[in-house]
Parts: sequence; structure tokens; C-alpha cells
Amino acid sequence: MTRTPVHAVGAGMVRFGKYPKSVTLEKMAVSAARAALSEANATPQNIDALYLGTVLGGSVAGQRVAAQLGMSGQPVTNLENACSSGATAVRDAWVAVSTGLHDVVLVIGAEKMTDRISGGILADLSDLDAATGLIMAANHAMSARRYMHDHDATRAQIAAVAVKNHAHSVHNPFAQYQHAISLARVLEARLIADPLGLLDCSPISDGAAALVVANTAGLARLGVDRNHPRILGCGLVSGTLHDGTRSINEEDISRRGGEAAWNITGIDPSDVDFVEMHDCFTIAEIVRMEGLGLIPRGEGGRWAEQGLTGLGGKLPVNPSGGLLSRGHPVGATGVAQACELTWQLRGQAGGRQVAGATTGLAYCKGGTVAGTDGASVTTLVMQA
Amino acid sequence: MTRTPVHAVGAGMVRFGKYPKSVTLEKMAVSAARAALSEANATPQNIDALYLGTVLGGSVAGQRVAAQLGMSGQPVTNLENACSSGATAVRDAWVAVSTGLHDVVLVIGAEKMTDRISGGILADLSDLDAATGLIMAANHAMSARRYMHDHDATRAQIAAVAVKNHAHSVHNPFAQYQHAISLARVLEARLIADPLGLLDCSPISDGAAALVVANTAGLARLGVDRNHPRILGCGLVSGTLHDGTRSINEEDISRRGGEAAWNITGIDPSDVDFVEMHDCFTIAEIVRMEGLGLIPRGEGGRWAEQGLTGLGGKLPVNPSGGLLSRGHPVGATGVAQACELTWQLRGQAGGRQVAGATTGLAYCKGGTVAGTDGASVTTLVMQA
Repeated sequence: MTRTPVHAVGAGMVRFGKYPKSVTLEKMAVSAARAALSEANATPQNIDALYLGTVLGGSVAGQRVAAQLGMSGQPVTNLENACSSGATAVRDAWVAVSTGLHDVVLVIGAEKMTDRISGGILADLSDLDAATGLIMAANHAMSARRYMHDHDATRAQIAAVAVKNHAHSVHNPFAQYQHAISLARVLEARLIADPLGLLDCSPISDGAAALVVANTAGLARLGVDRNHPRILGCGLVSGTLHDGTRSINEEDISRRGGEAAWNITGIDPSDVDFVEMHDCFTIAEIVRMEGLGLIPRGEGGRWAEQGLTGLGGKLPVNPSGGLLSRGHPVGATGVAQACELTWQLRGQAGGRQVAGATTGLAYCKGGTVAGTDGASVTTLVMQA
Repeated sequence: MTRTPVHAVGAGMVRFGKYPKSVTLEKMAVSAARAALSEANATPQNIDALYLGTVLGGSVAGQRVAAQLGMSGQPVTNLENACSSGATAVRDAWVAVSTGLHDVVLVIGAEKMTDRISGGILADLSDLDAATGLIMAANHAMSARRYMHDHDATRAQIAAVAVKNHAHSVHNPFAQYQHAISLARVLEARLIADPLGLLDCSPISDGAAALVVANTAGLARLGVDRNHPRILGCGLVSGTLHDGTRSINEEDISRRGGEAAWNITGIDPSDVDFVEMHDCFTIAEIVRMEGLGLIPRGEGGRWAEQGLTGLGGKLPVNPSGGLLSRGHPVGATGVAQACELTWQLRGQAGGRQVAGATTGLAYCKGGTVAGTDGASVTTLVMQA
């Protein structure tokens, strides 16, 4: 496959949070897109195609957004891979632009969850495990218990992930939560699924994020230089997280997702300077970093407690605040991760800047946790 | 953009129709996929990636199907562009294989409508036009009235499309309806939206269709020859069907969809030997053939009445029976069109074979009809 260099030339978001009905998916998506277009020195007429990721956005969401944005006639593709829908849209955009099918494309991830969901995400009741109570939080609670048992890890080590990610997003103007939280507050929060409490869980969120992606011809069209961060590639794998024969914490899909990234991009895990990780629950950040091979198995809890995954640490994870604190409007999350990589690699991340960041990885996961089917993982690698 | 030749090496379908709850989307999709894999001399392990189009199939439908099919770990992408979701999946597969991102991919379109819908498809009630009654059938009824007025066309000419497409699918073992209908029966059917009756409307259907797509390296992997039909390319455009300044029957999006196909593939409209057309309503086949420039404006009704678009005619349209008679499980339709092109171009279409067919075009449309937003059109060109 012949590939031309691909650059992220514009990133834009609306602040994640809970918005009234009048703030529609289309409005949020258009706002995020305009911000990304502005950074890219682009107009909607400069764009060859739109890729939009959403889960709850309804049919032809991308076409609705394109019309409101003033794009007229360009190809629009809607992607759905559950909570990794936005990340899958980023991958499709990378494929389209790296192969020269298109030269400049717009990617949007958007979700208006509060119109559709009250309380937690309902599990698929056709899944027998889910119907009998094995919902997302219960799965991750089992994961946490097993992790603590296997590795002599403590509840406080797991909770440290929430403390860290909230501390990071104090400096993220697009984060749903922009306040620090204490370890005591995480430990004392209302129990959701023992041992995980409310602050171990990512929130229900509304939001949108957008990215403009261009190849060399696209840079020339927009009149922007080659100094924008490069998208080296994006792995996409499917399968089960757990097959019942291993520990719940040996996520084979994470290992394979990492391998896909290393194979496609040619980078080595040791090249990664920081990670945007799908921390839908505190324990998930730890287990997935270990699954990728970026933290030795069993060490993730201690790394969090000792600040090794915090800003200024050995390998900062979720400088944006992650799903736990930036928020998790499901289809928007993968694009927001790509925005964070872009800003970090440009050195524009302000108080949450990872010093000297030159290579970033974003891991996004969608689909079921427990069942034998239906998970999807993307691994996006970008470089300054 | 560097492109390698892409071949459709396997096609498979389940018969479209109305199935009980026990016949799930996953079961239909797996059956169609196995038939396509068998034609392609392939196993699930030979496949590099799956692209699945569905509208109502729920989250990570492709991953669920992949798991049941025995694919393990390959990239899975779910595509949604309303009634052109399957066609958009075919386009994504063509992009992936023609650029060498993958060498052999599986495309599936699948929909279980009868579990979700009783009566007609509910319009989006957030669309003011739809909420006040301008549903799909009403739109196409206005289109028919305007067409009859502008071109001195008759009700019988429009009804002739249904008679023709039912006559074709007598020979299609995968069609929902495999019986001929008389002109009188179409004219006397229960009125849905004056002048259109029940038999002018495509039915609610369940079904799945699958296609295996391979490039030159993929042919070698599967051990199949180059004589399989080639996918020359697939246009994708978005926008409005009607902007209020033109006649409802001057579908700008159809003209642009045709231009995208001619530009991408280098073929001329006069090269097209037969068409699989998105005849969600009888009048739509006529208006869209004219919009593509394949029939002179205002002549489509007479062409249908005189048999010019029937088997043996000047330009056969919908040898499969089309949406009207093969059925219209929305996400499956675009893949079913690609299957029909494949079988026709191999000369394997039996009693519905278009004699000497060497170039076929499939037009698939999704999204709203009336509003200012949300339509998508694909134009797939294949050659023997």
C-alpha cells in the first residue's frame, strides 16, 4: 500500500458536559467543526469528504451536520463501532487521505447522550450476561477485584487514576470536570459496583470533537505548512476482551491492538511519550496500559499511585482528563483523543502539556466487555 | 491515487422476506456471508476485514456477526447511510482493497426490519415536514403528480415499473416476491398516497447480502482467477434531493451521483448495459434514471410502458426485481445490488439474465427526500 504523509491540521471541540435539549447534536458538531476548520485555515468548501462517528445520533447524522455546516454535496460516511465510533471515523479518514482517495477530510465525533439516556448506559438485554446483571460497571468491578487479588494492589491505587485524571483536566477548557478531587472523595463516593464507586466511572456526557486531516496535496490546498503533527497510522482490531479461559485482566484484544499499531506505524512501544487511554472506569486504564505492553503487568496500580502516569511522570496517561474527567460522549471520545494528541504534539496544551511530547498514542474501545462477541479497539499513533 | 484492480469474487444472499424473531440479523448475515465465501473459495480466516452496513441492527452489529462467523480479531467497521448503508459499505471495501490497505475483504448488508417496524417506516418526527405528513410515500406521490403534469405521462406508465420489476423477480430465487402482477392489479391496489398505491411502494423486508472483494494479491491468496467481475469504482455524494427552487423531479443529487461515477471510473453513460436502481417507489426509478442522464428527461414513463427498461429492452433496469419486488431490507439493499451486478456480469443470472451484459451500474439512495438535509447517493460501476 502506497501511503503519503497525513497531517492533523486542525482540531476543535465543544466543552463536554450536560446540555439542554436545545443544544442539539448538530449544533455541537457544527461548533466543533468550525473550530477545527479555523485552525486548519479551511472552509467547508475546502473539504473533500466528511467522516462522522456517532452511536445514538440517528440515521444520516453526518449528512444533517454537513448541511448545517454548509458543505454541499461532498461524500459523507457515518461510522459506528460503539464507544470507539469516533476513533473508527478517524481511522477511515486516515485511510482515505493516506491513500490519496481524498486530500483534505473532516472527521467529527458527536453524541447527545442526555436526550437519550438517564442513569447509566443500558446494557443490551438480548445479551444473557447483561440481562442477569453483568453490566459494564459490574464487569469492571470484577476486573478490579481480580487485579487487587493477583497483584497485591490496593483500592487506593485504583482510585489514584481518578484523582490523577481530574487533576489533569483542571487545565483542559473542554473537560466536563475542571476541578481536582481528593483520594478520600473517590474512596468515599457512592458505591456503584464493589469496589468501584461513582468517581471510578466515566460520566454520561454530551459533546462533539472535530479534526481536519490533510495529505501533502491537502496542505498545499490549505496553504498550511508541514509542521502539523503527523498521523502515523491507526490499528483496528475486533474480538472478545475475555474468552473465559484467561484472567479477566489479560485483555487479548488490547495486546493485539498494540501490535496492530506497532506493525502499521513502525514505532516501538518505548517511543510512546504519552497516551490518551479509554478509561471508562479507573481500573480499565490500568488493565489496558498493561495489555498494550506499555506498563509491566501488575505494575499499573503502583504507577498510578506513585505519579508515574501523571504529568511530569515517566509515561503520562490521559493528560486531557480522559473519559473519567474530560467526559465520555461515546461517539465523540475517539475524536477528542485525536484532538488532544494534536494539541499536545504542537505544544499547545497549556497547563496540561506533556513536556517534550513527540509521539502520542490514543487507545479507544467499543462494544461489550463480558460477552463472547462485539468488541472493537483502535490504536492511533501521532507524531510531532 | 494508486489503484489496483478490484474484483467481486463471491456473492451471497438469503432470500429477502418476512421472517420470525428466531431468524436474527446475525443468522441471516452469517448465511449470506457463508454463501459469498463459498463462491470466493474463501474461509473466514482468509478475510482481512469486514465492512457491515445496517440501519436498525444496533451497536457493533458487524462485530457480533464476525464472532458468529468465526472471524477472529480482524478489523470490523459498521457503516450507516440510511437506505444506502450497504452500498456505503461496498464503497468502503472498494477503497480499502483498491488502495491495498487490505487484499480480501467481506462486505455484508443486513437488516431485520420486521422486529422493529410495523406498517411503514416512521419518518423522523424532528423533521417539521415529516411531522406534518410529508412522509416518504407522500413525497413520491408529489413527484408522480408533477411528473405526469410536466411530461404528459400517465398513471399506467408509472405503474408499469412495478409490473416490470415483479416480472423480473419471478426468476430471482432471492426475491421477496416471485410472482408476476398485472397492470390492473397495480392500478387497483389500495391507495397509499394518491396516485401511488400499495404496489408502487417497496415492502418492509428482512434480509442479508454479502460480497467478497479482492485485489490482485487477494486473488492469488484465494487461488481464484481474474475473470471475476471488476469493481471499477463507486461514487458517493450527499446533499438535498430538492432545494425548493427546482421541480421535485430534477434531482440534483442524482446528476451529481452519476458524474461521480463517470469521473471515478472513466466510463461513459452509453457504456452502461443495465442498472440496479433504487426503486423505493415506482416513480423513483423513472426520476432517478433520468437524473443520472441514462434516460432523456420525461421519457422514463414511456420507456417503462414500452418495455425499453425490461429484460430484452434497450436498457434493462432492475433485472433482480429491484426494491419493489426483490424487497428492501434497508441496510442490505446496496449489497444485494452489488450481488446482482456480480451474477449478471458472470452470466449466471438464469431467467433474468441481461444478454451480453458487460457493464452494470447500481444506484442506491439513503436519507430524507423532502428536507433540506440528509440525503446520500452511491453509484457503483462493475464490469465483466
